[in-house]
Amino acid sequence: MNTMSAWGMGIESTASAPPALSGSGKGKKVLILGAGLAGMTAAYELEKLGYKVQVLEARSFAGGRCQTARKGFSLTELGGEKQTCAFDDGQYINHGPWRIPLHHQSTLHYTKLFEVPLEVMVNDNDHAYVYSENAGPFAGKRLRVKEVKADMRGHVSELLAKSVKSHQLDQELTADDQRLLLDYLQHEGALTANDLQYKGRSGRGFKVNPGAGLNPGPGTPSDPLGFKDLLASKLGNVYSAVQDFPMQNTMFQPVGGMDAIAKAFEKRVGKNIRYKAEVQTIRQNDKGVTVTYKDTGTNKLGSISADYCLCAIPLSVLRQIDTDFSDKFKKAVATVAYAPVGKIGLQMKRRFWEEDDHIYGGHIMTDLKGINVISVPSYGFQKKKGVLLGYYQYQTAAIEISALSPKERAEFALAAGQKIFPQYTENFENAFSVAWHRVQYNLGGWAEWTDKTRAAAYPTLVEGEGRILLAGEHLSYLTGWQAGAIESAWQQIAKIHERASA
Amino acid sequence: MNTMSAWGMGIESTASAPPALSGSGKGKKVLILGAGLAGMTAAYELEKLGYKVQVLEARSFAGGRCQTARKGFSLTELGGEKQTCAFDDGQYINHGPWRIPLHHQSTLHYTKLFEVPLEVMVNDNDHAYVYSENAGPFAGKRLRVKEVKADMRGHVSELLAKSVKSHQLDQELTADDQRLLLDYLQHEGALTANDLQYKGRSGRGFKVNPGAGLNPGPGTPSDPLGFKDLLASKLGNVYSAVQDFPMQNTMFQPVGGMDAIAKAFEKRVGKNIRYKAEVQTIRQNDKGVTVTYKDTGTNKLGSISADYCLCAIPLSVLRQIDTDFSDKFKKAVATVAYAPVGKIGLQMKRRFWEEDDHIYGGHIMTDLKGINVISVPSYGFQKKKGVLLGYYQYQTAAIEISALSPKERAEFALAAGQKIFPQYTENFENAFSVAWHRVQYNLGGWAEWTDKTRAAAYPTLVEGEGRILLAGEHLSYLTGWQAGAIESAWQQIAKIHERASA
Repeated sequence: MNTMSAWGMGIESTASAPPALSGSGKGKKVLILGAGLAGMTAAYELEKLGYKVQVLEARSFAGGRCQTARKGFSLTELGGEKQTCAFDDGQYINHGPWRIPLHHQSTLHYTKLFEVPLEVMVNDNDHAYVYSENAGPFAGKRLRVKEVKADMRGHVSELLAKSVKSHQLDQELTADDQRLLLDYLQHEGALTANDLQYKGRSGRGFKVNPGAGLNPGPGTPSDPLGFKDLLASKLGNVYSAVQDFPMQNTMFQPVGGMDAIAKAFEKRVGKNIRYKAEVQTIRQNDKGVTVTYKDTGTNKLGSISADYCLCAIPLSVLRQIDTDFSDKFKKAVATVAYAPVGKIGLQMKRRFWEEDDHIYGGHIMTDLKGINVISVPSYGFQKKKGVLLGYYQYQTAAIEISALSPKERAEFALAAGQKIFPQYTENFENAFSVAWHRVQYNLGGWAEWTDKTRAAAYPTLVEGEGRILLAGEHLSYLTGWQAGAIESAWQQIAKIHERASA
Repeated sequence: MNTMSAWGMGIESTASAPPALSGSGKGKKVLILGAGLAGMTAAYELEKLGYKVQVLEARSFAGGRCQTARKGFSLTELGGEKQTCAFDDGQYINHGPWRIPLHHQSTLHYTKLFEVPLEVMVNDNDHAYVYSENAGPFAGKRLRVKEVKADMRGHVSELLAKSVKSHQLDQELTADDQRLLLDYLQHEGALTANDLQYKGRSGRGFKVNPGAGLNPGPGTPSDPLGFKDLLASKLGNVYSAVQDFPMQNTMFQPVGGMDAIAKAFEKRVGKNIRYKAEVQTIRQNDKGVTVTYKDTGTNKLGSISADYCLCAIPLSVLRQIDTDFSDKFKKAVATVAYAPVGKIGLQMKRRFWEEDDHIYGGHIMTDLKGINVISVPSYGFQKKKGVLLGYYQYQTAAIEISALSPKERAEFALAAGQKIFPQYTENFENAFSVAWHRVQYNLGGWAEWTDKTRAAAYPTLVEGEGRILLAGEHLSYLTGWQAGAIESAWQQIAKIHERASA
């Protein structure tokens, strides 16, 4: 029963299950390049269809960008020094993907199927701070998001109510609609009943919280921020009427770290993965595909042939591999930009953001250069220590900071974040950072399409060439999301199956 | 270090720790009536101070209203038949308190101290439905909250932008402020850049979600609901600029059920609790307090004397007990109304709200009479079964429905809720309901103060009389919240200690 179709409203079409494919792949072999989520999704589904599946993975572990840094996890960026994560047991940072939106039913298909326990990832916390150094009258001050939302919407509601009452909207709205609009504005803005003014509200927080007895008793209300100050600060523009797709509640994270998803796949398809197999050449003809690889442990070369190949290697890496793709296809592979992205996890000896600031999970938005956001963990509430995300950089900032040593990156994150949380220095213990554009076999956080490259290269890449199809988040409009990788794999294995069954 | 005071903004004063009391209660005895959270908080803190503490509890278990119904939990309402909860193992409903707001630092003080694991309770879910039978053009249709928020705020932003552009606000705002306001409105309402019109946005949901490849590729946007239809529906008034205090993220629930808090207290103070001890009389003189009680197991009477008494019995029950309070005090006790409140948990064999509707935790608001809200669980995501809250009634509706048998209540909840979730009937397994106003030793959900009763009775009750002080959520402005009980106890034990130390 598709209950949704019984309703006229709120229908959303979404890819929530692998393609229902009939027939069998028996006797046919598919070679999959890359054991990230796209590659492993394909391996899992194709094997169920009867295909012989072989996966080549350059690393010694599966998952691609679906990684979690915890005690002992090590990373050596290209040209960088080796970092080994020194977080306490039970502490971790998802330095790759860290969120599973409710809309990503494809990812949720596998967490359910593989029984990967999920917990809520606090992605929306109006009690968190917003901190801007360029916020006019509020520059360098911490505000709570709720203050900005309550006061901006309160003042704006008051302003519009005034327009209605002074008959400036008589042309736009009937008398009935004006009355309904005033009711709405009074509610939305918490305006006073008699004169429709905004004078603050409980949702912006109290000066003294309500409590027991006579004191504090009902508590003491707080005063709203001034409308003109708020306008000048532009802080109202940090938030919006509603969280944009796909950022809405409910957001999830796997209990214990995002790599639980990678491990769940690996448990099922790991037997078909050859690790430390770095692809060297890709060749195809009418009969099949042949890939040579280097075993990075032994430095020996090997070769595998198959009827079809699904290449789930990031384009940033694929374009450095020796292939016999057509010039047009090679150009398409080469044309897509990859995002410089940096993240850092900072282990703190005390969860001061909870204890002092009462922020339990969620993001502190900031315009501090190279920081962007400080995100506090949605696991281990009220425990002793915690690992927070100290920055999440893109573009120029990510490139600049990535040139620093791991130690210098931590120093940068601490010095900047200290402006928001003065508790940083005395609580910092250790850090783990990643600059995805400097990570071998990734060379970027995700594919960064523009209208121009979508037009020039996307259809070509989606189509594949001959017996080779590509898959990954880069072949979706969910770039940077695990769902993009999974749904891309779903589409491409359907095409392989169609061609193989022809 | 009080970091907060280093900042000019966002300070909130809140009771976050028990009173720091010096001296010792050694050699003095305090009798506590009622082993709910107020009584157990007092018992725990007074014993730490050296007092001899004795608690009388009418039930065979501690916790008061802090209860969780799971397999085997039984309840017989006054004049009702016995219900025994038949949920599957691991399923439960918090039929008493079910939420711990981040602002309730007093409750969070004990969950931290007692290491009660918390998880996020999804209290705010814009992907949930709102369903009204009186919503004009949308009557009887399910909308997503995000559609209402996005479209109302979008249309309203467009309207105000139009006023600004047509110079109707030149008197109100400078040219600079008008420019800043237009920037804000464009962002808030997701208005088109060129002509500042609202034409929908990703946050309201897509017709076809973005995905992989060429189809769905970027997906298909959805069309906004019409402004006049929305105004006529009044659905915009269900939500507001910001969640009111204390409903904001992050909301918590203890892992496994709210009674984890009761059990954590009981583990520490249980040795001082005499269970099944129903208070019969309360007497005091200059020297102390004497309370007689009936052992409801043996029907034998007993008597306990102490230097002081903290009475944490709900006023609804206390007023039926034989006391020697002054007439003024008795009148104050008698004057406070208690809320009729009904809740029902419905076990469903399939989590259709997740599987079909993609609602993971959160509330479906409705004006269906006697339903008010359907709330889906914030635990067990993606598992097979689930227990949802089928109604949460107050006042007349709660009184009417409470007259039904448990079976009839479930039938009522199913018949009504079916209008929102057609999957109800085929998935329903069993139910557990409570009508707090019919529960012995509670006789109501919480104290329901009015301005009049606050003025007439509250100071008298907070003051206590002689050697007897009262405590409980009823002596706070956090009525119905566990924090009210805890903070009230904190205040009253400080007074007892002061008097005992005098």
